[in-house]
Amino acid sequence: VTAVDVAALERGVLAQDRAAIARAITLVESTAHQAHAIELLRRLHPRTGRARRIGITGVPGAGKSTLLEALGMHTLARASEPRISVAVLAVDPSSQKSGGSILGDKTRMARLSRDPRAFVRPSPSGGVLGGVARSSRDAIRVLDAAGVDVIFVETVGVGQSETVVASLVDTVVWVVIPNAGDELQGIKRGIAELAEVIVVNKCDGDRVEAAERARVELTAAMRHFPPMDAGWRPTVLTTSALPGASESGLSALEAAIEAHRVCLETAGELTRRRASQEVAAMWRIVEESAWARLRQKAGVAAIGAALEERVRRGELAASVAASEVLDRAR
Amino acid sequence: VTAVDVAALERGVLAQDRAAIARAITLVESTAHQAHAIELLRRLHPRTGRARRIGITGVPGAGKSTLLEALGMHTLARASEPRISVAVLAVDPSSQKSGGSILGDKTRMARLSRDPRAFVRPSPSGGVLGGVARSSRDAIRVLDAAGVDVIFVETVGVGQSETVVASLVDTVVWVVIPNAGDELQGIKRGIAELAEVIVVNKCDGDRVEAAERARVELTAAMRHFPPMDAGWRPTVLTTSALPGASESGLSALEAAIEAHRVCLETAGELTRRRASQEVAAMWRIVEESAWARLRQKAGVAAIGAALEERVRRGELAASVAASEVLDRAR
Repeated sequence: VTAVDVAALERGVLAQDRAAIARAITLVESTAHQAHAIELLRRLHPRTGRARRIGITGVPGAGKSTLLEALGMHTLARASEPRISVAVLAVDPSSQKSGGSILGDKTRMARLSRDPRAFVRPSPSGGVLGGVARSSRDAIRVLDAAGVDVIFVETVGVGQSETVVASLVDTVVWVVIPNAGDELQGIKRGIAELAEVIVVNKCDGDRVEAAERARVELTAAMRHFPPMDAGWRPTVLTTSALPGASESGLSALEAAIEAHRVCLETAGELTRRRASQEVAAMWRIVEESAWARLRQKAGVAAIGAALEERVRRGELAASVAASEVLDRAR
Repeated sequence: VTAVDVAALERGVLAQDRAAIARAITLVESTAHQAHAIELLRRLHPRTGRARRIGITGVPGAGKSTLLEALGMHTLARASEPRISVAVLAVDPSSQKSGGSILGDKTRMARLSRDPRAFVRPSPSGGVLGGVARSSRDAIRVLDAAGVDVIFVETVGVGQSETVVASLVDTVVWVVIPNAGDELQGIKRGIAELAEVIVVNKCDGDRVEAAERARVELTAAMRHFPPMDAGWRPTVLTTSALPGASESGLSALEAAIEAHRVCLETAGELTRRRASQEVAAMWRIVEESAWARLRQKAGVAAIGAALEERVRRGELAASVAASEVLDRAR
């Protein structure tokens, strides 16, 4: 544990010093130097709010990293200034269980990782869902303050991770792959609720027909649902990672993401969405921390685990077990 | 505030004494006599686990109460014994804001309310979402212990109330109404995730064609999504509240609900689903109560509200505001 020079970190972040940005993110992700992290976030706050936050989700194998690298490079093609304008952040609530980071893999985004105008951050080494949501929110804030224009937040489509990503970003992009049958692998039941842009990926070679069919079907399916915030209706499009075919698909994807931003901003919904996300996050952190504090009392964690097991076996009602945990923590 | 005779309440509930059931539910819903409520739930616990729990949701005007009354009477048609076998419970997280109870309205379920074999409970007078989820869970437990066979939990399709209902029941029934166009009013984006049975209601008169079209479209839309727990695929059917047409629709609805139970039970998912619901509820109660306890310290509630407002206006980061609230509560 070393001392943290918050003022120096702040200067480094604002100057887009890579090492400083990386250290600042590590600081806000860790629970070790919380006072310093809060102080840094407080200082950086006035510089935040300008970056676009875009979530990318989909099952493993949908081609998210490849698409993200292509989209990042496509975005950078217009960036003339020699500064960091695109960042990729990974949210991986599963990494704790799987024992390793599976997202934001630099080796899978080799071009983007090497580009001086991009900042690719692998996922943190793990943590509970709540902790991941909190640390990613603060990492986004660091990148935003550093003057990054577009922050992509990548997650894997498992468990609750899409919900977490949706609580962090302005626009959710869902990457799916067509398969041979009528079914679309990789579309989860939550999709209709969360995804503003749906990308049918790997639309190339002998998959063009299947991808096109998937696009038509998804577009039809989405029509069954009422509009999202600000009257937005999900855009469904196809992309390919093949060099020739990719540019038009990427342009269309970029245009769809931009159209969503315009739609939200015109309706005043972008500000409202971000404000709701922040307020919800604030109370989530308070509740989790309040319990974390009680949990530190002797025996509370152990009795909580034992009672959970009894509830799981049907021996105790939830409210009865909760009251026993709370009695112990008194 | 009067003394509570828990043993007498327990006897009354087990004997299906209406007044005792009503008082027991009031006790577990209130926060006043928590020790008594916990004691009652502890005593009743061995008698619980047999009742079917069915959620009914849909927008206001979808005809939930009318359908529920018809379904309740239909269920009772086979009940020969003179005991309470059907109950209706309302979950209404919005009642606090709207200033009144809008669900479980006895006047809207006149026949069922008067039937000695049914117990209709209007929604409690309001409360926060978490509190409503907890008190409804315990009210279900009281009815279950009383030997009620089927407990319908009605909610209005606003905000997070469907998610709450889905966390309380075995099967979620979504009631929608067809409208003139291609769009289905009343279908929210969360539907694909939560509803095991979808009922296109008011399929009568000049709406038969629109309802049938809605059924076909919804069935097609549902095919885009992978199966739910235990491989279940949502059943979509039409119902009518008109006397002649209603019986076959109600039988089909009952059969779909029963098919879902069989599907869950065969896969061992019913036990697993209820266990997960209870465990999740336990920790939710612990976290909420932990915060509620901190909140009681002087000034904490006020500073929390003030900080929330600053977060909403974009003046503070969520984690910074949360840390200030927690510092105050230390």
